[in-house]
Amino acid sequence: MKVNGTHYRPIWQAADGSAVEIIDQARLPHEFVVARLASLADAAHAIRAMLVRGAPLIGATAAWGLWLAMREDASDSGLASACETLASTRPTAVNLRWALDAGRARLAAVATGERVVAAAAFARRVCDEDAELNRAIGRHGLAIIEAIAATKKPGEAVNVLTHCNAGWLATVDWGTATSPIYQAHDAGIPIHVWVDETRPRNQGAFLTAWELGNHGVDHTVIVDNAGGHLMQRGRVDLCIVGTDRVSANGDVANKIGTYLKALAADDNGVPFYVALPSPTIDWTLHDGFAIPIEERSPDEVTRIPGRLDDGTTGVVTITPPGSRAANPAFDVTPARLVTGLITERGVAPATPEGLQGLFPDRLAAGED
Amino acid sequence: MKVNGTHYRPIWQAADGSAVEIIDQARLPHEFVVARLASLADAAHAIRAMLVRGAPLIGATAAWGLWLAMREDASDSGLASACETLASTRPTAVNLRWALDAGRARLAAVATGERVVAAAAFARRVCDEDAELNRAIGRHGLAIIEAIAATKKPGEAVNVLTHCNAGWLATVDWGTATSPIYQAHDAGIPIHVWVDETRPRNQGAFLTAWELGNHGVDHTVIVDNAGGHLMQRGRVDLCIVGTDRVSANGDVANKIGTYLKALAADDNGVPFYVALPSPTIDWTLHDGFAIPIEERSPDEVTRIPGRLDDGTTGVVTITPPGSRAANPAFDVTPARLVTGLITERGVAPATPEGLQGLFPDRLAAGED
Repeated sequence: MKVNGTHYRPIWQAADGSAVEIIDQARLPHEFVVARLASLADAAHAIRAMLVRGAPLIGATAAWGLWLAMREDASDSGLASACETLASTRPTAVNLRWALDAGRARLAAVATGERVVAAAAFARRVCDEDAELNRAIGRHGLAIIEAIAATKKPGEAVNVLTHCNAGWLATVDWGTATSPIYQAHDAGIPIHVWVDETRPRNQGAFLTAWELGNHGVDHTVIVDNAGGHLMQRGRVDLCIVGTDRVSANGDVANKIGTYLKALAADDNGVPFYVALPSPTIDWTLHDGFAIPIEERSPDEVTRIPGRLDDGTTGVVTITPPGSRAANPAFDVTPARLVTGLITERGVAPATPEGLQGLFPDRLAAGED
Repeated sequence: MKVNGTHYRPIWQAADGSAVEIIDQARLPHEFVVARLASLADAAHAIRAMLVRGAPLIGATAAWGLWLAMREDASDSGLASACETLASTRPTAVNLRWALDAGRARLAAVATGERVVAAAAFARRVCDEDAELNRAIGRHGLAIIEAIAATKKPGEAVNVLTHCNAGWLATVDWGTATSPIYQAHDAGIPIHVWVDETRPRNQGAFLTAWELGNHGVDHTVIVDNAGGHLMQRGRVDLCIVGTDRVSANGDVANKIGTYLKALAADDNGVPFYVALPSPTIDWTLHDGFAIPIEERSPDEVTRIPGRLDDGTTGVVTITPPGSRAANPAFDVTPARLVTGLITERGVAPATPEGLQGLFPDRLAAGED
């Protein structure tokens, strides 16, 4: 999508082929900085320190990380060790494991001397496929938005609430939750987005607001506490969120707080959709509550970065000295609260049968 | 309650009788500053700018504001104008209206020359009565905590989740939601409090954490998004929150986000209690959704104050330039999600009959 009129992806191979380049998302929205990943260690750090984040983009970064690793050590042990290093960066996103498993299988099948080239081709394919999956997600989600728009008075906006950032910055292009929004906007449907700020890391206020603003989509930032009230008052037409992992029965792991919005949507008859490319489905898991939930540093709760009034960036601590904090990073929304899963193949009910119906091939593979 | 070993209330008449003094809560937890209110304008400003906040304390400050006003102009028109000024400061808290109506009736009944003395006596009574109501609330809430503690292994803490600050800083003493917690702690029951930070103004992270820490109560600050996940995982035994206004049918207006926690409590079988002194009940209102919801400045969402790393205080802006924000300050939790209303007379079901059963005298008065 566009930044100051130029099309960007959040990750790409440097023009001279010497490294991987990323938009450093830890510095958005205050600074737009391109960071260079020149080694496996750089790639692992970028994922762990969340210079890149979002399940699909984590997968893409891991794929490029394998390329960087193969340049350093293309042996079998180098490959195994690279996969281990990258897998340990974040525990919740299944795309990470998916990219590493697929990349490892692909690279193990070629001679060590060919692994650098094969790894670059693999990473490019992961990226291009993700962009294409998200474009398809957007097409299916657009139909949902069009149906709601048809019930509105002329010029009246469709109000979408989203949580965290499942935008193009979280993927390779289009985003997952935002893809239907961008496609509706581009199709001229009046649309307005309620952007949950998404504490503790404020990916909504920092990234989703920045993305939507750059693309010209009307939006309003709200605290995470506000969505239920807005739904009670009829000011939300639908929710669309992304996910870090969906179990085969349709439970959804996503950014902490998603579950609360799903409860409010259910209580107020607001449709609650989850947008995901199929690599986010964990076919081996039949209960979402078995998904490991990452516990991150309490500093993310107690210390908030932002722009100081002098234009520089800084951090404020909000808690009194001596008060500790806890920071579970994800929660699981049970399938019963999900209206539908918007995938690249269409909208599936959040049930084993629903997913199986759209992905009979994947389910069989997952059960191997 | 105690601050550095000294007992404080959040509001009192200055020792020399020349003014009202308050703890400036806009500067907590980073600085402990006593502010002086010497005029009606000072009192109105303190309420509007939230140097004092919390429904009972707003009522107490309004009562002291009447005293300051009578010193300036004790005429009937001065009284009417003071009530109007103070009533306009915050729209949601019913205690404000209650204190002003009661104060106005009291002062209108005495000669203008006696109004200054009568106003001080009235304000003192409002404060002492609030402290006593809250002590009684704590006694009834303690019984609930004791019953849960009885189901725990020896030494295992009762986990209470609370939202916003309904602590002694929000009242004249004890707090409402915190009164059972302080009394359980003082009775030697192991207790641990999950403190919702409570965006946008972070009254949980700023005030509840500070209060609990000063009193030695074990607590953990969490983002507002985390409570649902903790309830799903069995890590919350009960919720206790305060309220700004309860309708006669048991609907609860409280800080934005309360409704989301009530939904999660309901979904996970966690008891959800609301603690309130009876002046918080609006007997004239039979539907909580008719309670006016204050819309506050978007700056409270986009700009977060805290301690900078150099020890001074500062503010960070979190949103990109050009992204607007909305800031509804309260929401309404429907009575069906409330396990019980902990009042000074005992625990009432959140129903018209439940409230009527405990307060047959008030209901009749409210229907006048």
